[in-house]
Amino acid sequence: MNLLTVLQGIHRLQDLSKESTEQSTSPSDAGLPSEAKSSPLPVFNYDEVTKHRSLEDGIWVTYKGGVYDITEFVAMHPGGNKILLAAGGALEPFWALYAVHDQEYVLEILSQYKVGELSVEDQKKQEDTKASDPYASDPERHPVLRVNCKKPFNAEPPSEILTESYITPHVFFFKRNHLPVPQVDPASYRLQVEGLPGGELSLSLEDLKTQFPKHTVTAAMQCAGNRRSDMNNIKEVQGLNWGVSAIGNAKWGGTRLRDVLLAAGFGPEVANWARHVHFEGLDKDVTGTAYGTSIPISKAISEEGDVLLAYEMNGEDLPPDHGFPLRVVVPGVVGARNVKWLGRIVISAEESASHWQQHDYKGFSPGTDWSKVDPKSAPAIQELPIQSAITVPADGAVIDRSEETLTVKGYAWSGGGREVVRVDVSLDGGNTWQVAQLRNGDEGETTEPSPPPGRAWAWKLWELTAPLPPQAEELEIICKAVDNSYNVQPDTILPIWNLRGLLNNAWHRVKVRVRED
Amino acid sequence: MNLLTVLQGIHRLQDLSKESTEQSTSPSDAGLPSEAKSSPLPVFNYDEVTKHRSLEDGIWVTYKGGVYDITEFVAMHPGGNKILLAAGGALEPFWALYAVHDQEYVLEILSQYKVGELSVEDQKKQEDTKASDPYASDPERHPVLRVNCKKPFNAEPPSEILTESYITPHVFFFKRNHLPVPQVDPASYRLQVEGLPGGELSLSLEDLKTQFPKHTVTAAMQCAGNRRSDMNNIKEVQGLNWGVSAIGNAKWGGTRLRDVLLAAGFGPEVANWARHVHFEGLDKDVTGTAYGTSIPISKAISEEGDVLLAYEMNGEDLPPDHGFPLRVVVPGVVGARNVKWLGRIVISAEESASHWQQHDYKGFSPGTDWSKVDPKSAPAIQELPIQSAITVPADGAVIDRSEETLTVKGYAWSGGGREVVRVDVSLDGGNTWQVAQLRNGDEGETTEPSPPPGRAWAWKLWELTAPLPPQAEELEIICKAVDNSYNVQPDTILPIWNLRGLLNNAWHRVKVRVRED
Repeated sequence: MNLLTVLQGIHRLQDLSKESTEQSTSPSDAGLPSEAKSSPLPVFNYDEVTKHRSLEDGIWVTYKGGVYDITEFVAMHPGGNKILLAAGGALEPFWALYAVHDQEYVLEILSQYKVGELSVEDQKKQEDTKASDPYASDPERHPVLRVNCKKPFNAEPPSEILTESYITPHVFFFKRNHLPVPQVDPASYRLQVEGLPGGELSLSLEDLKTQFPKHTVTAAMQCAGNRRSDMNNIKEVQGLNWGVSAIGNAKWGGTRLRDVLLAAGFGPEVANWARHVHFEGLDKDVTGTAYGTSIPISKAISEEGDVLLAYEMNGEDLPPDHGFPLRVVVPGVVGARNVKWLGRIVISAEESASHWQQHDYKGFSPGTDWSKVDPKSAPAIQELPIQSAITVPADGAVIDRSEETLTVKGYAWSGGGREVVRVDVSLDGGNTWQVAQLRNGDEGETTEPSPPPGRAWAWKLWELTAPLPPQAEELEIICKAVDNSYNVQPDTILPIWNLRGLLNNAWHRVKVRVRED
Repeated sequence: MNLLTVLQGIHRLQDLSKESTEQSTSPSDAGLPSEAKSSPLPVFNYDEVTKHRSLEDGIWVTYKGGVYDITEFVAMHPGGNKILLAAGGALEPFWALYAVHDQEYVLEILSQYKVGELSVEDQKKQEDTKASDPYASDPERHPVLRVNCKKPFNAEPPSEILTESYITPHVFFFKRNHLPVPQVDPASYRLQVEGLPGGELSLSLEDLKTQFPKHTVTAAMQCAGNRRSDMNNIKEVQGLNWGVSAIGNAKWGGTRLRDVLLAAGFGPEVANWARHVHFEGLDKDVTGTAYGTSIPISKAISEEGDVLLAYEMNGEDLPPDHGFPLRVVVPGVVGARNVKWLGRIVISAEESASHWQQHDYKGFSPGTDWSKVDPKSAPAIQELPIQSAITVPADGAVIDRSEETLTVKGYAWSGGGREVVRVDVSLDGGNTWQVAQLRNGDEGETTEPSPPPGRAWAWKLWELTAPLPPQAEELEIICKAVDNSYNVQPDTILPIWNLRGLLNNAWHRVKVRVRED
């Protein structure tokens, strides 16, 4: 079986999977275990399975009593090399951690690679050591959130909530966790700062709060996968199916990363060789690997970079889902670099070697598919491009002709501290455009003064009230924003399509129907 | 006559003008003077005309013996308030300076406002004091340049020359002059630096070369009007009809602006109030007003901003057309702020009040026309957006089927020091995309190392060689670039159309025909 055949197989199976989902077959009903009973395949004991842990010897795994040779699949695993952690052992504890696998098409892909059965004794042993749920201590969340994945928890608010307030309350702020929420005792918490000439620096939460001045920064934060569902609708991508609400705007309070780095010994000597700052979370997978990533040193050390080690969100302690007791806030930069539950900072000449820096969170050409993607060919996403979306009205809404005017609302933001200077709105599918009213504060409040050039970290909310176009039975409403580098959003999604569904910043479109009286 | 009627009149006249140009009527043959002979209009003497120099008293001007009340036209003048300089006097010296007026439709607009004849005695006086040509001492230029305007001189090279060398030779570097090229004696030249606590600083060319370290920066420079002709083809705009070659990439050598500002007394005190740095050229109009503009102080004073007071271009003294003996090079920022023949620098709390900062070089919504444009509503263009264009093959080229492969070449660049990370090329009108090969040096040479984040000032050249698509009789070739903030170019021009035809960074498209053997 060559790679192409396998890929075609995956696509076929994904299509099958969709059909059976439509027929309400629950993924947990999938036929793997029962199939196993009447299997004519050989029986292996666990010692045999554990010998297959490399590409040379083959990569074998077990799942519910079946033995699978997934060597050929490794290169195609959307999660990259992480899959090798399971080599020679059971998939169950990993799938409990990465619950995105709890889908029927995943089981169908797996079934293709079945090579045997696990001996009955070894099956029993595995059942006895069933993984306990690492997500059991995750915090409670508000039921209004639209859950994209339960474990790890990933959810966003209904879009109309976003434009209700300039500062997004933490309850409604999108949650994007890669792993279980760690339980951190603030009294014994320590932040390690490494790689600087003075040796390792260890700071308590109290140290961070009392030894350095407190700074506050109002900054929007956006997931690279925001608006992925629209991209997925046009052509299938891999990833959580985010709507337009994987973005929020908060007032962050904390210590400047710059101040901590200077206190830890950063100086002209270090500047000669240091190029990156690594952040490591306290959230860990079953092998003990923490979530990690890095940003360029220039952003971290610049006075104008405004990078915070934040202990407050909207004037209160960070909530558990947002990184209690400490997270990084890297204004203008993709959410993935704003590491939560921050445990360790390392100054380095190299980028972080983590999966999330080297293999994920990168953008590729629309012509690149899983068979030819080369992660080294694209830079890690840091600053995000110009973005805007409509939050009101909702797609599919019905408007009465008697209302005469229509109010359209939304948000707009650009990465890198570039200020949004204009939002154009069309009520007729892009034929004519009107300029929306921008605001950078809550209605009725004095708005904040314009930020210095290159430091516009917060979003802008916008609104347009215009006469309902006469005659039209259906309106295609579009918004597009412009930042002060005069970057604009592209017209359509397909030319920026990429296999992970990242960076969708095409014009946002919603359709509404006009009901005659 | 209200504004709307006047505007409609202009558009109608512009259409008429095009038709008559097609019939080869020379603008200088336009009928104004002869019409005057049989005019039933009143006769004024010059003293009467000079009384009309304000909107209250009316704005009158004379042209070839006619008297015109242009009060209503002032608000619509594409060149803004500059027109008021001519109030109460003769247009001829201004039109000699701004030779863009040497077009028939301009005379036809003017004819609408005729209110009388100048007395025969005063006409004779005016002829005696005819303006001498202020462009007489402009330098010689290479005939290969495509001239968009002779006076002031504005010209670009054929696009295929751009991708012949990574560094653009000065002879082929686009020329964009707003006024005549000033004659500057390098021995007596002085740069004035004003607005700092130490008082005025006056620096000779020798001072600049010997009292400060020399820096070199390879940076592309692009006119905001680059690619205007494509925008004009879709819907008419005002401005010089640039193709894709109002851009070039040069190695600039000189003194850092930052070093000069620090030497002149810039410090924390000044940083508290200073927000902008004004630049004034030695190129002046008939009233003595110099070309001028400003940039934010943060860009000017930052070590990473790399702003130069350049006295060298590609290793030689600046050529007269490029600002001899000194110009500002503001990497990553629109050409208009890179003031040539620099005479004066002023530190200020305010932006430059000049026409080119306040009224021109701004971007507006596609829905904004001359009747409702508010210059205050848009920020002055500083950093430019992501851009790319095809230089080879030329639009309309014919390719032999027997060649089997097709090579497409072009340039890509983004403002603000954002590095171009990918160029996608389509040979089928955007249905499929291939990734082009990028280079940041000349072929065969060792390429320059990757610049630090945020300091990618130079362009990249790119190339794709691909099989000629079978069957196709015509190919629509498209390119689009991505920078490291993952900003992309918009698909089409109309949604970014603006009345001055600035900032056209839509996908660049050329069509070629395939000839069967």
